[in-house]
Parts: sequence; C-alpha cells; structure tokens
Amino acid sequence: MNDAPLYLDINATTPIDPRVADAMTPYLREHFGNPSSGHVYGRRTREAVDRARAQVAGLIGCAPAEVVFTSGGSESNNWALKGAAWAREDRGRHLVISAVEHPATTAVCDWLAGRGWDVSVVPVDGQCRVDPEDVARALRPETAIVSIMHANNEVGTVQPIAEIAALARAGGVLMHTDAAQSAGKIPVRVDELGVDLLSLAGHKLYGPKGVGALYVREGTVLENLVHGAAQEGGRRAGTETVILAVGLGEAAALAAADLDEEGPRLAALRDRLRDVLLKAAPDAVVHAAAAERLPNTLSLGFPGLLASDLMAELDGLACSAGAACHAGGATASAVLVAMGVAHEAAVGTLRLSVGRYTMGEEIERAAALIAAAVTEMR
Amino acid sequence: MNDAPLYLDINATTPIDPRVADAMTPYLREHFGNPSSGHVYGRRTREAVDRARAQVAGLIGCAPAEVVFTSGGSESNNWALKGAAWAREDRGRHLVISAVEHPATTAVCDWLAGRGWDVSVVPVDGQCRVDPEDVARALRPETAIVSIMHANNEVGTVQPIAEIAALARAGGVLMHTDAAQSAGKIPVRVDELGVDLLSLAGHKLYGPKGVGALYVREGTVLENLVHGAAQEGGRRAGTETVILAVGLGEAAALAAADLDEEGPRLAALRDRLRDVLLKAAPDAVVHAAAAERLPNTLSLGFPGLLASDLMAELDGLACSAGAACHAGGATASAVLVAMGVAHEAAVGTLRLSVGRYTMGEEIERAAALIAAAVTEMR
Repeated sequence: MNDAPLYLDINATTPIDPRVADAMTPYLREHFGNPSSGHVYGRRTREAVDRARAQVAGLIGCAPAEVVFTSGGSESNNWALKGAAWAREDRGRHLVISAVEHPATTAVCDWLAGRGWDVSVVPVDGQCRVDPEDVARALRPETAIVSIMHANNEVGTVQPIAEIAALARAGGVLMHTDAAQSAGKIPVRVDELGVDLLSLAGHKLYGPKGVGALYVREGTVLENLVHGAAQEGGRRAGTETVILAVGLGEAAALAAADLDEEGPRLAALRDRLRDVLLKAAPDAVVHAAAAERLPNTLSLGFPGLLASDLMAELDGLACSAGAACHAGGATASAVLVAMGVAHEAAVGTLRLSVGRYTMGEEIERAAALIAAAVTEMR
Repeated sequence: MNDAPLYLDINATTPIDPRVADAMTPYLREHFGNPSSGHVYGRRTREAVDRARAQVAGLIGCAPAEVVFTSGGSESNNWALKGAAWAREDRGRHLVISAVEHPATTAVCDWLAGRGWDVSVVPVDGQCRVDPEDVARALRPETAIVSIMHANNEVGTVQPIAEIAALARAGGVLMHTDAAQSAGKIPVRVDELGVDLLSLAGHKLYGPKGVGALYVREGTVLENLVHGAAQEGGRRAGTETVILAVGLGEAAALAAADLDEEGPRLAALRDRLRDVLLKAAPDAVVHAAAAERLPNTLSLGFPGLLASDLMAELDGLACSAGAACHAGGATASAVLVAMGVAHEAAVGTLRLSVGRYTMGEEIERAAALIAAAVTEMR
C-alpha cells in the first residue's frame, strides 16, 4: 500500500502485527479441532487457547483463570456492566460511570436505565479528568458497579483508576475499567489499578478484530451475558475462537515486551507533530494538554475550521474527527462537550494517533500536509 | 497431519475450507481499517463486510440487511431468545422450546426461568421429531417466541420447521430456528422455513470459529444483546470482525454452490459406514433411522459397550460420544434420553459425522477400525 494515505488513526484500529499474523496462520490452515473435543484435534487447539490465556494474563498481571475471552471490547463492557447489574440487583439498581465513556458503556447504561436502573454520570474537568471525590459522592448502598475507562479514546486522558477503585471497593462496589485504549500503550496491571473487572480489545493492540477479554478477579460474582455450554470455565459460552485468541495472546506478549521503550518513542513522535502544527497554527488547541495522557494521542482543535472540511482536504492522511458533520452543521463529540471545550475549537478537532509502525519521516509528511491544509483554508 | 486420526467429527467443527482461508488472508496481512472509519482504510473493509453479508444472504434466501453478524451460533441463539423475551415482556413471560435443543438455547431458558419466565419444553418422539401439534398446544397469548432447532446435532433429525413456524406465527409468536447444524448440509431458506429468526455458525460450515449470524426478518422487533456503537445497523455493537465475516461469507457462497451434489455424496458415505458396522454388530441401533435426517450424521448405539471405552480403543479415529463418562458410571446425552433410547444403547453411542473432505477410502478404514474394536471388546 505505497500510495495509501499515512495512517494516523491507531486509536480507531491497529494493523495486525506480522508476528501476530504468523502465530495465527496455523489455526487458519491447519489446526481446526474444537477445543471441547476429547480427541487430539481438540487437545491441540485447547492447548493453544490455554497458552494465549496465559499470555494475556502476563500483560495485565493476573492469573490465567481470571482471563475470559470475549468477542471484543464492546462485549467485555456489556458483560461487565450487565453481569454486575443482574448479579447484584437484589441490593437495588444503581451504577456509576463517567461523562466520557465509550458507547459500549453508555449504551448499556441507557438500556439498563430503561429497565429501572439509576445511572449516575460523574463529570470530567477541562482536561477530561474524573475527580475521585465525585465518584465517592455518587456511591450509594445499592450501587452495583463503578465503570470508568482507563484512558480516553479521543483525547488520551488517563484516569486515576487506582484512587477511584479504592473508594469503590471500600464501599463494597465492583470496579470496572475499560482498558481497550490503554493496554499496550501504558502499563495496565490489575493489582496496581485495584480493579475487579477490566476490558481488553485485540484490535487496539496490534491483534485481530473480533476478540477481547474480560479480566474477572477471582471471587467476583457476575451473571453471564452469553449462556450455553461450559466454555471459558462456564462464564462465556460458544466454541472458542481459537485463531483470534491465539492472536490476542501473541499481541499481548509483544505489547508486554516492548512497552518500556515504545511509550517514549510514541510520545516523541506525537510531540513533534504537535510542535510543527502549533507553529503553523498558533491558535490551535491541544485538548487535555495538562493531563496525564496516552503517549500516542494528539487531539487538536483548529478554531474557525470544520474538521470534516479539513479532512476532505487531507487526501493523503487517515485520521479521525472530533465532530460529526451533518446537514444542520457540526456536532462536537460528547467527550469534547463534557470537557467544556469551546464549540469553535471542538468542531475543528482532529484526532491524530500514532503507533508501532509510525516512522519519524511520516510525522514530518503528515505535519506538512495538515499545516498546508490549515493555512490554505484560512 | 498424515498420522492424524481419521476425522469423523464434522458436527463438532469443520476445517476451514482452503478457499475460505484464501479469502480471509488479505484481512490478516493487509487490509486492517475499521469499517466505521470514513477514510479509504475503512471503506475497503466496509465493502468486504458488505460483500460477505450478501453472500450469507444468498445462502439462506434473504435480503442482506436481514443478516446480522455475531460472534457465533451461541451468541445468535442467546440474542434471539433474550432479545425476543425482553422486547415482548409486556405481553407476559413465556417461551417454547423442544426437549433436544442445544445448550446455547437451554441454558438461556434456564437463566430466563430464574428471572420469572415460564418455559414450555415440547417432547420429541423416538426419532427425535417434534410434533407441531405439541407446539400449538404449548402456545399462550403471552408467548414471546418459539425456538426449535432445524436439525439435531447429535442424531441429525430434521424438524418440521415450516409447519411449526406457520402455527407459531398464526398465533402472533416469533419463530426462531437454530440452523447451525443444517446450513450447508441441506437447503436452509428462510421463506420456505417461514421463520422470523435463524442462527448460523461459521465453524459448522467450513468457515472460521468465532463468527455466526442471526437472520432477523425485516420488521422483527428485538432488544439488542450487545449494546454500544451503531455497527450492524445498530443491532450488534462492536468493531466488525472483518476477517471472520469474510470467511463466513465465502463459506456460505461455497456451501450454496455445491449443496445439491454434496448431500447425496455424504449420505452414500454415511450409509456405507452404517452398513459395514451393522454387519459387524447386528444388534447396534441406528438412532433416528426412520426420521428425515442430515445426510452426514450417523448416531449408532452399541448395547453392552460404553462409548468412552470404545473411543479409548479408537486411537486412529476422532468422533464424539453420546454419553458422558464419570466416576459413578455413564450418563446418556439429554437428546438420547429425550428420545427414550434404552440406557444400554444410549451409553454405548458414537456419533460419526462425515463431511466435505471425507473420502470413501477413509470410510472403509474407519468402519474396519470400529468393527474390530467392537468385536474385540465383546
């Protein structure tokens, strides 16, 4: 794909690492047994799933038996929230999230709200940060679960999960975090975070789409989301997706191996991009600039421009917009609105996210493309 | 895998057809965009998912928009039953299944039963057949859904779905069928069956594990099982599993293309196996012999033997048992029990299922292996 646009949209999805693809290939062409079968065909794939589970456990610092494979981050979030809500509804019907959660969390809450659940939404500040004290104030005796994402997908803000988790668990409330965007970019260790439940997504981590995991701390009681046969220790029915589980396992192992060197490299690329763009457009706004952020994420608002117009100019670059454009104008993303970003800067926002294969030279080209487009449009 | 055992366990899972693997490979190594992305990376994978959806629609004779990709047959069944139950609970709380459904149906019903739902279980006869009149008698004004599998995974009996569906729908009740085992083996056409909802599983159809579909007839109101962003027309959240959807699509296209020739070929292999084995063990019982059956499935009880002992002798053959063995003895499968099969024949039951790659010569070898083991053990 030599003529393909520069890809600065890693937070939307990652390529599959070639080493991950290599690990998956035998399960595409050769080993096909059902892991539930007692014969050698089944034994071979069962062992592959077990290895993958241990690799995922290694990335997040838990026991393999605490890792349950799912069909992705959305299913993991659905399961955590619904499973906790159903399991604890004899206490009452209340849960707590933040104002900047992913749709796979907010839509679950909307659905539960329509079925009698009360949902408290804690605000964020201008840097997209949740204040743990706000979470503490939202807790009630009947709260089933607190779900706050580890890092925000749009602006990159990393939340104080350890503090929030300590408060939630002190109140006897389950703590869930969606780590789909943070895993592989910053350390994600379940004991440091102090969470009961944690969601992972393969395709944000140079693994395949269609697979994720839910970390379920030993002893945590959840209702199942997908009932049936006894796969995944009886917690998630369905014949194991061996090829994707193997991919997520390998992706987790690779992420764990180069986390320390990769973070600073990504941050340097990201900051170089920021510097060139701020020179070309000094009034541009770096969202969440003062927050602890993912090293790879730059969310930048260009006041006076519309992100959709800007992206239309940027044929050679793939990235995301911080606003949806429609007939009546433009609507800023819920995250930027929750942060209180001025409308003008919000609707002119690009999300640029760099990754494992982003080269310094690409950053220079991308910066030049964006700077030229911004200058021309003004 | 030249020394690998003969594989007569197609109903447990199929190998991925090499043509399916070829179709999937570009999405493993090359095209990785998120189908929700507006840029060219996203457009490419979005188009691939659209093509796959049309291929699945072609197999079952529906509109592409009526096909929703899921993570597999278990999720499809969970969604159909829970989605219908939740959507119609203002009418009351009742559903109808048969006594021989897959755990992905029965476990859902057990869970709903624990939450206030009433579940009517209609019996089967000695051939594993559901009597449509029994279904009609079970219907109530508050029935949300009838779910009867198209073909049984253990003995192969094909149910009179069209008759049952006509009765259910005449009563204003949604009709679901689990076609995981029938699709690709016999014709599965939603209008001939007259169903509102139909489950498919990729890995029973020479496609990959971890992907399935739920056919949702236009106008059918279901609550979602997995909430979140607006993928799959807002009906199933989660970044599309492009590689697996492409695999299911290709598998569906291949199955549609050779259905007419493949059925008789499989039936001939299956019947040859039966004939040799009945010659070696004239007292063996072919389960559901008088029923309309899947052409590839032979369920055979050897009175006086335990399936687990027999399989332990059959190093060179991979198949399934019709009973679970444990410290206290052996428990016949729920399907054989529901059919009223005598305990002695049930606990000595092997399920032998043949498929696209089974060769006549393998049938001769398998028959000789089983006949020798049965003779020796007696």
